[in-house]
Amino acid sequence: MVSEFQGKTITCLAAVAWKAAEPLKIEQIQVAPPKAGEVRVKIINTSVCHTDAYTLSGGDPEGVFPSILGHEGAGIVESVGEGVTSVSEGDYVIPLYTPECRECKFCKSGKTNLCQKIRATQGKGLMPDGTSRFSSNGQTIYHYMGTSTFSQYTVVAEISVAKIDKSAPLDKVCLLGCGIPTGFGAVTNTAKVQKGDTVAVFGCGAIGLSVIQGAKFVEAGNIIAVDINPEKFKLAKEFGATTFVNPLDYPNKAIQDVIVEMTDGGVDFSFECSGGNTKIMRAALECCHKGWGESVIISVANGQDEISTRPFQLVTGRVWRGSAFGGVKGRTEIPNYVKMYQDGVLKIDEFITHHFNLEDINTGFKLQHDGVCIRPVIQMF
Amino acid sequence: MVSEFQGKTITCLAAVAWKAAEPLKIEQIQVAPPKAGEVRVKIINTSVCHTDAYTLSGGDPEGVFPSILGHEGAGIVESVGEGVTSVSEGDYVIPLYTPECRECKFCKSGKTNLCQKIRATQGKGLMPDGTSRFSSNGQTIYHYMGTSTFSQYTVVAEISVAKIDKSAPLDKVCLLGCGIPTGFGAVTNTAKVQKGDTVAVFGCGAIGLSVIQGAKFVEAGNIIAVDINPEKFKLAKEFGATTFVNPLDYPNKAIQDVIVEMTDGGVDFSFECSGGNTKIMRAALECCHKGWGESVIISVANGQDEISTRPFQLVTGRVWRGSAFGGVKGRTEIPNYVKMYQDGVLKIDEFITHHFNLEDINTGFKLQHDGVCIRPVIQMF
Repeated sequence: MVSEFQGKTITCLAAVAWKAAEPLKIEQIQVAPPKAGEVRVKIINTSVCHTDAYTLSGGDPEGVFPSILGHEGAGIVESVGEGVTSVSEGDYVIPLYTPECRECKFCKSGKTNLCQKIRATQGKGLMPDGTSRFSSNGQTIYHYMGTSTFSQYTVVAEISVAKIDKSAPLDKVCLLGCGIPTGFGAVTNTAKVQKGDTVAVFGCGAIGLSVIQGAKFVEAGNIIAVDINPEKFKLAKEFGATTFVNPLDYPNKAIQDVIVEMTDGGVDFSFECSGGNTKIMRAALECCHKGWGESVIISVANGQDEISTRPFQLVTGRVWRGSAFGGVKGRTEIPNYVKMYQDGVLKIDEFITHHFNLEDINTGFKLQHDGVCIRPVIQMF
Repeated sequence: MVSEFQGKTITCLAAVAWKAAEPLKIEQIQVAPPKAGEVRVKIINTSVCHTDAYTLSGGDPEGVFPSILGHEGAGIVESVGEGVTSVSEGDYVIPLYTPECRECKFCKSGKTNLCQKIRATQGKGLMPDGTSRFSSNGQTIYHYMGTSTFSQYTVVAEISVAKIDKSAPLDKVCLLGCGIPTGFGAVTNTAKVQKGDTVAVFGCGAIGLSVIQGAKFVEAGNIIAVDINPEKFKLAKEFGATTFVNPLDYPNKAIQDVIVEMTDGGVDFSFECSGGNTKIMRAALECCHKGWGESVIISVANGQDEISTRPFQLVTGRVWRGSAFGGVKGRTEIPNYVKMYQDGVLKIDEFITHHFNLEDINTGFKLQHDGVCIRPVIQMF
């Protein structure tokens, strides 16, 4: 089967971010055919993640406009460029904002998932050859995170797609593009939480819930969910949290001190999923157990914000780390996440609180910001 | 052989820190006999470490005065209190500011050397029963770090001494009380540097040199010594450093950027041995390789000083840790350090740049502060 658009430019709808801090606008755009080593994907479903909102806000130093945001989606390969061998037309795929080339220094190190093969161009909103495939009436529109899933068609590098089983429901597994592996993998790949370990999770949005899910999966002991929105504790419990702490209940006490006391010295692991609050990152570190507690920063802070603590916190044995995309090597691991979902081992449906058509994507941003929505699934067609 | 002082108070000389920021004063003091679980040690040699100077400066929130400082020394057991079984009169010992009880939650965890058995009283300058064994004409003088090696006789907890072989030269192995294991162990226990890894060492005092020695021991690859005093590079080279960087040679460039460039992306491990400079702690983190580089803070900063960085540094894979006493469990590991020295595997002599009698201990502080002295060895009698 050959796409009717093979080798041709496609005109389709996309949600375009024309300027920072303005709502997305649904436009007809042109999507050029994939060049060598590239894949054009028909996006069936996408979701919205905090990082999209962060870039749209203007706080992201790498944010370029106009651009097509979106990095959590799923679709079907429409056509492939020259030399592409790992996927072909009709394959189900999940675009990866963290590619996996398997040949750069980073991929070969065995120590990180942060493939750097196309990092320089991706950070500038461009394809690896330094140009864009998106335009609107001749004006260049930039890519975003190498994925741009807020378009009905997008072009990504071959190393930026995970091929998944065709039996996978794209309106569910689209969430595997970011939030779920990011939280789950932070537990299993980055922190390597062991059975019985005590865990604190700061923030019960999609990432925090995924951390909770990962912690339950590895049979952590006490799983403490921390959020200032007690509405979120119901879902947190469903995912496996065993203790619930609302910092607003302790107006005169630092939340790290509350947790250190309730855990007889602190937790073995903490995860910061606050959406970029550096004060919470500090609290997450300082609630760790002296001698061995490790804290993992997951969310992305505004460009100039800094974390700080007294060095004594580290000298007395705490460890401060971070995790990006859960340490997941996407092409290798994402197919297995799909399988876990299909086997009933991994929850996805429970994250999906809202459904929208592409036209209403701004509502998805708003509801997520307001904390009433965990993940909206956007139907692209 | 029973000590002539068994069960009696000893009057002897000690260097007393009467007040913050004043020179030590050599005084006759009284040392009460050891109580149950305690050991009285005749200190033969001691050295001076940055932490003594830090506490004397008044910057240490736990500093109490008047007190007897000193935590890097060696001596001979004079007498033991009730119930002491692991050492007896005449044993050669090294006092441990990090004890090893082998029964607290920390010792049993297998994850840390930070025994907490007597932490609360030690931090207050007291023996485990909440009292002091030191006095001067009836006035209480406080202990320091559970060791107080600046006295001809000191009393320490049984869990705070490592018994070493009687063939060990105390005027050399006294340095195993702090600096050498602190640096060496940070490499082998805390960071677990592997063969071929690239290492940056910030500060070439005794700790930094010990890190270099440890890095060479594990056959690290490029070992980069960083110091603003180029005089120190000669010794650094002798210990195993292969590259030398003087930040003063790069007046317009952050030293982390210099190192990232010269190492094609950053080092695998960095060690901060600057004597408590939080800006250098940040540079040490930020010169680590994206994806996997780990930085270890070793030195002690002023009480209120804070470290900071952009969280992105961690999210992109760098790890920030600390190390206290090199992760060394003293009673178990220090005897082996002695053996390594005696076998010619571990350098100690090269650290010793000056010798003083107890009367001249303030000169040792001054020369070390001025950077002309690595370690002075003080003869107590």
